[in-house]
Amino acid sequence: MTVRIGVIGTGAIGRDHARRIQHVLSGGTIVALSDVNRASAEAVRADIAPDATVYATGQELIAAPDVDAVLVTSWGTTHEEYVLAAIAAGKPCFCEKPLATTADGAKRIVDAEVAHGKRLVQVGFMRRYDEGYVALKKVVDTRIGAPIMVHAAHRNPTVPEAYVTPMAIHDTLIHEIDVFRWLLDDDYVSARVTFPRSCARTHAKLRDPQIVTLTTAKGTVINTEVFVNCHYGYDIQCEVVGEDGIAKLPEPVSIRMRLDAKLQNDILTDWKDRFVASYDVELQDFLKAAAQGTASGPTSWDGYMAAVTSDACVAAQEVEGQSVPITLPTRPALYA
Amino acid sequence: MTVRIGVIGTGAIGRDHARRIQHVLSGGTIVALSDVNRASAEAVRADIAPDATVYATGQELIAAPDVDAVLVTSWGTTHEEYVLAAIAAGKPCFCEKPLATTADGAKRIVDAEVAHGKRLVQVGFMRRYDEGYVALKKVVDTRIGAPIMVHAAHRNPTVPEAYVTPMAIHDTLIHEIDVFRWLLDDDYVSARVTFPRSCARTHAKLRDPQIVTLTTAKGTVINTEVFVNCHYGYDIQCEVVGEDGIAKLPEPVSIRMRLDAKLQNDILTDWKDRFVASYDVELQDFLKAAAQGTASGPTSWDGYMAAVTSDACVAAQEVEGQSVPITLPTRPALYA
Amino acid sequence: MTVRIGVIGTGAIGRDHARRIQHVLSGGTIVALSDVNRASAEAVRADIAPDATVYATGQELIAAPDVDAVLVTSWGTTHEEYVLAAIAAGKPCFCEKPLATTADGAKRIVDAEVAHGKRLVQVGFMRRYDEGYVALKKVVDTRIGAPIMVHAAHRNPTVPEAYVTPMAIHDTLIHEIDVFRWLLDDDYVSARVTFPRSCARTHAKLRDPQIVTLTTAKGTVINTEVFVNCHYGYDIQCEVVGEDGIAKLPEPVSIRMRLDAKLQNDILTDWKDRFVASYDVELQDFLKAAAQGTASGPTSWDGYMAAVTSDACVAAQEVEGQSVPITLPTRPALYA
Amino acid sequence: MTVRIGVIGTGAIGRDHARRIQHVLSGGTIVALSDVNRASAEAVRADIAPDATVYATGQELIAAPDVDAVLVTSWGTTHEEYVLAAIAAGKPCFCEKPLATTADGAKRIVDAEVAHGKRLVQVGFMRRYDEGYVALKKVVDTRIGAPIMVHAAHRNPTVPEAYVTPMAIHDTLIHEIDVFRWLLDDDYVSARVTFPRSCARTHAKLRDPQIVTLTTAKGTVINTEVFVNCHYGYDIQCEVVGEDGIAKLPEPVSIRMRLDAKLQNDILTDWKDRFVASYDVELQDFLKAAAQGTASGPTSWDGYMAAVTSDACVAAQEVEGQSVPITLPTRPALYA
Repeated sequence: MTVRIGVIGTGAIGRDHARRIQHVLSGGTIVALSDVNRASAEAVRADIAPDATVYATGQELIAAPDVDAVLVTSWGTTHEEYVLAAIAAGKPCFCEKPLATTADGAKRIVDAEVAHGKRLVQVGFMRRYDEGYVALKKVVDTRIGAPIMVHAAHRNPTVPEAYVTPMAIHDTLIHEIDVFRWLLDDDYVSARVTFPRSCARTHAKLRDPQIVTLTTAKGTVINTEVFVNCHYGYDIQCEVVGEDGIAKLPEPVSIRMRLDAKLQNDILTDWKDRFVASYDVELQDFLKAAAQGTASGPTSWDGYMAAVTSDACVAAQEVEGQSVPITLPTRPALYA
Repeated sequence: MTVRIGVIGTGAIGRDHARRIQHVLSGGTIVALSDVNRASAEAVRADIAPDATVYATGQELIAAPDVDAVLVTSWGTTHEEYVLAAIAAGKPCFCEKPLATTADGAKRIVDAEVAHGKRLVQVGFMRRYDEGYVALKKVVDTRIGAPIMVHAAHRNPTVPEAYVTPMAIHDTLIHEIDVFRWLLDDDYVSARVTFPRSCARTHAKLRDPQIVTLTTAKGTVINTEVFVNCHYGYDIQCEVVGEDGIAKLPEPVSIRMRLDAKLQNDILTDWKDRFVASYDVELQDFLKAAAQGTASGPTSWDGYMAAVTSDACVAAQEVEGQSVPITLPTRPALYA
Repeated sequence: MTVRIGVIGTGAIGRDHARRIQHVLSGGTIVALSDVNRASAEAVRADIAPDATVYATGQELIAAPDVDAVLVTSWGTTHEEYVLAAIAAGKPCFCEKPLATTADGAKRIVDAEVAHGKRLVQVGFMRRYDEGYVALKKVVDTRIGAPIMVHAAHRNPTVPEAYVTPMAIHDTLIHEIDVFRWLLDDDYVSARVTFPRSCARTHAKLRDPQIVTLTTAKGTVINTEVFVNCHYGYDIQCEVVGEDGIAKLPEPVSIRMRLDAKLQNDILTDWKDRFVASYDVELQDFLKAAAQGTASGPTSWDGYMAAVTSDACVAAQEVEGQSVPITLPTRPALYA
Repeated sequence: MTVRIGVIGTGAIGRDHARRIQHVLSGGTIVALSDVNRASAEAVRADIAPDATVYATGQELIAAPDVDAVLVTSWGTTHEEYVLAAIAAGKPCFCEKPLATTADGAKRIVDAEVAHGKRLVQVGFMRRYDEGYVALKKVVDTRIGAPIMVHAAHRNPTVPEAYVTPMAIHDTLIHEIDVFRWLLDDDYVSARVTFPRSCARTHAKLRDPQIVTLTTAKGTVINTEVFVNCHYGYDIQCEVVGEDGIAKLPEPVSIRMRLDAKLQNDILTDWKDRFVASYDVELQDFLKAAAQGTASGPTSWDGYMAAVTSDACVAAQEVEGQSVPITLPTRPALYA
């Protein structure tokens, strides 16, 4: 069966996902497109999916009888309404992060999905599909004993002027927040933020770097350095310390050279290159589940937990050095 | 357009390629199957391609009007006839190595394709699609100056009793023979084989390890250690020494652990795991070109050159330590 | 000139230093020995320094006219009195850590040395002489921009039953406390300790692992994991994050092997092997300065600062998660 | 006992060894100096060994009653006569490579030492004392099974105009020739040289790079790339392939940095930095043995074998691609 997909939001990521489904992945076809800027949707139709219908609104697209499943790749502020509509229509829905712009919004999606009684939503936390993290999880689960600490770093060479301190959580740490819950199979109970002196390359509204300490229900302590003006490259580091040993996320594949008196590998500088292969895998996973009328991978609950944790981390930024508790709601059976 | 594929030979690799086309890749569908063991073809139909027709012979399959393109994954001895038939039918054809069991056989395919006037054949040299080799080639082409030497190794933990000395060329080195021609954009002019003392784990009919020295038209010297009883793992090593620097094929992605007083990464032990991702890429490349009625990637000419070089290497085994010249036929314009 | 050395305390480390001076280093000779267990001193005389005189007490040894300089390698509780006596006698003195068992005791030594007006004391913080740390300091000083964060770890495979929580500071972290002051050319202003859940291998009186966060006067934040039941080996890790880049302490020299399906290097398991070469260098430095009647390397002030910082870290253990301020006394000009 | 040393030849290496003995090592003192350029010897006396006597000739120095042992660090052409004189005087003698400029000359030294009946000569093959090679030998002897192949490289960034093809053997490969005999505990039976096309940076009288293949009595095949215009750095590589696994010479200690979009370590560019620490160890070994009136470490026989092998390699350069046999003389019992 070929899953007939509608894409709401045809900007960079929407267009790229449409291309994947048409030209790279198996089992899906783009039949519907929509964007607030209709010309954008028309262009994707012209370039990628000539047989697709362009709809004036996302709601119309969701309602279209020949749309089996939906990709929500519009602006973050619109995610909640489209995901709720897809659930109401009983159609599988892949939603890019954030699931909603508030924890309450994410909670409304969880409630709707639980009421529906079957998983329909996959959140676009692509790192769970990255070859390196998948290999790391296997080792963490089987080789190094129970995890006790994680030492991590999320570094960008630079960020735009508009990037302010809380965005280090909402736009950057959000990936670690999700992936460590999955990696450790655990939940967070508190957050603390420590600020070293800020680096010279930052600006008045961004304290950079910062160290975010998350403690889990099982007592694991995760320290993540977030440094978004690190200059040298885009670099994701993660080391898990277990009872018996330590495991480290692999570096991206690159060529070791001996050149110019240096033993050297290139480091990526553009975040878009770092997890590019995992987008293919996550969408293939979506297509496979959607063909069965359901969803797989990161859940609405995961999206909600990420929102709750992010809020706590931002609160922790405001009381530097103090521990902010994270209240764990009861997990519905649907997400057990 | 969806390319309708017929598969001749539904053993392990044929079945796996059928799975790829049905479940992983974009743009192809399995419509026809054939195997000398009809039950094998029926099983693949049942498991993977329920809408496919099973044909009694490869020739019938090739002739079927709804077959747009052909995968030849039957026994090596039958490759030549099926590839020639596909060319005669004007249908794109992906042929697993070897293209033919003799250089003359490969030459007949080259001649037929040249007579046809358009590329129709892709040979299954999957390493050219491996992420590591692709990255290495980019660096060799742009960063380290003109290549002068290559130091390589092809190691298997063990081989069956039936594996005898010439198979170290035909079954093992064959991959290096092709990939280095591509990597260096060069041709071979001579071969020499050196035998160290054989390892204790080998048997009377297999001298193991051996070092094969290939010299190219541009004067690059390639030393490849072939060691098929190395015991510790399946390991492919390649280092290119250029005028300005050196580049090394990356190790496969694995997790670095600190465990049991060792800083350690697992080494693969099964060759099937080493280039598994590149099979997807090579077949996607085939589907894309087949949709245009042609072929891409490794050519019949490459298959022919691999056969000519293999023959020279086997001759060099028989005159250990002496250089055996490799005569370069003129390359037809089709493969320029 | 050959410096005539007296050794007070001829246990394992005293004996080993005597051997160094007699058989490895240039410019010194052992002329005097003393130990509370006289037989121990006699044994070192017999084995290593047959021409040395054995004294009943350290004080007598210090007073002996043919003793130019003193090594204090006795029990920690006796260090203060011997160092003070050496200063009173105007003799250069190498003292193993701790300089004194209390910050007040260390302060008395500082005061005595300042009153004397010339450096006479070197404290045995050998890491400053380690090839790896020396190379790291050079890079930190010149290549990576101003340091902002340090991520470090001090791991032992196991510790004896008698090792309790505060010893993780006094016996273990003490080395990081000193070496990071030197590496960063900075002083500490606060300490915080975070305890993940303890590992299963520890015991009731030892919370293990722990993460100690030190903040410096310049605003650098240093996180050091102390994990003394890590099981897998003795492992010292240190990574400095600067404005422009990151530098990492090298692993000890070891052989990379491909063996048993693992790419592997041995990790040390005995702490005594990790910095063994640096003992030679630190003592050679002592001999060189002693020949000039003075001392070099880590100062009494460094020993005092280490004691003050250790006390703050232990206080921080008792108020887990809270920041404990470290008051910086004024640095005497002698140690500028 | 302090060994009283005379140094013949006070150029760069002689001066440096004098400094070692006076200021770094234990158990020796410089009492005599000699150089064809007397001013050079006077300068070393002034700077390093003020109590030493300067002699007009090496022969006088050797004859001086207060000279216990001799360092021969003069021009290579004079080594033989001084070593023979030292043997005649029954004095331990450390001789920088080459032991003699011809195999016959080396043989005369062997004969003289055998006639003397006790080892007196240590040849300056310092690599045997390098921490990395020592660790490698331990692993080769105990962990990876019997060695079958060695893959090695000796690379210099550049060489002077006067450096011609045979010097790649006599001045460069000579170190590998000795160290692999020691590492493998084996002897050579044949040599072959392969020349890839020469690199653009070389000149008319130097074919560069070259690959030298040495085969041992036990059947191990050693391929060493000699590339003295490699541009990127001074780099010594060595990998031993055994029956059970592979071991690799460690890289020199250096700091891994993340900087400028590169994960990078500096590579040395000056050969003098590569084995600097091993000079200390080899001379300490000499002093220790000399105190017993004998010699340790690399023997005259090793120097002779290196000369014989070098001659075969140069002969092999002249018959490119052909195997040149190396005749093994009978090893005298003194060197068993």
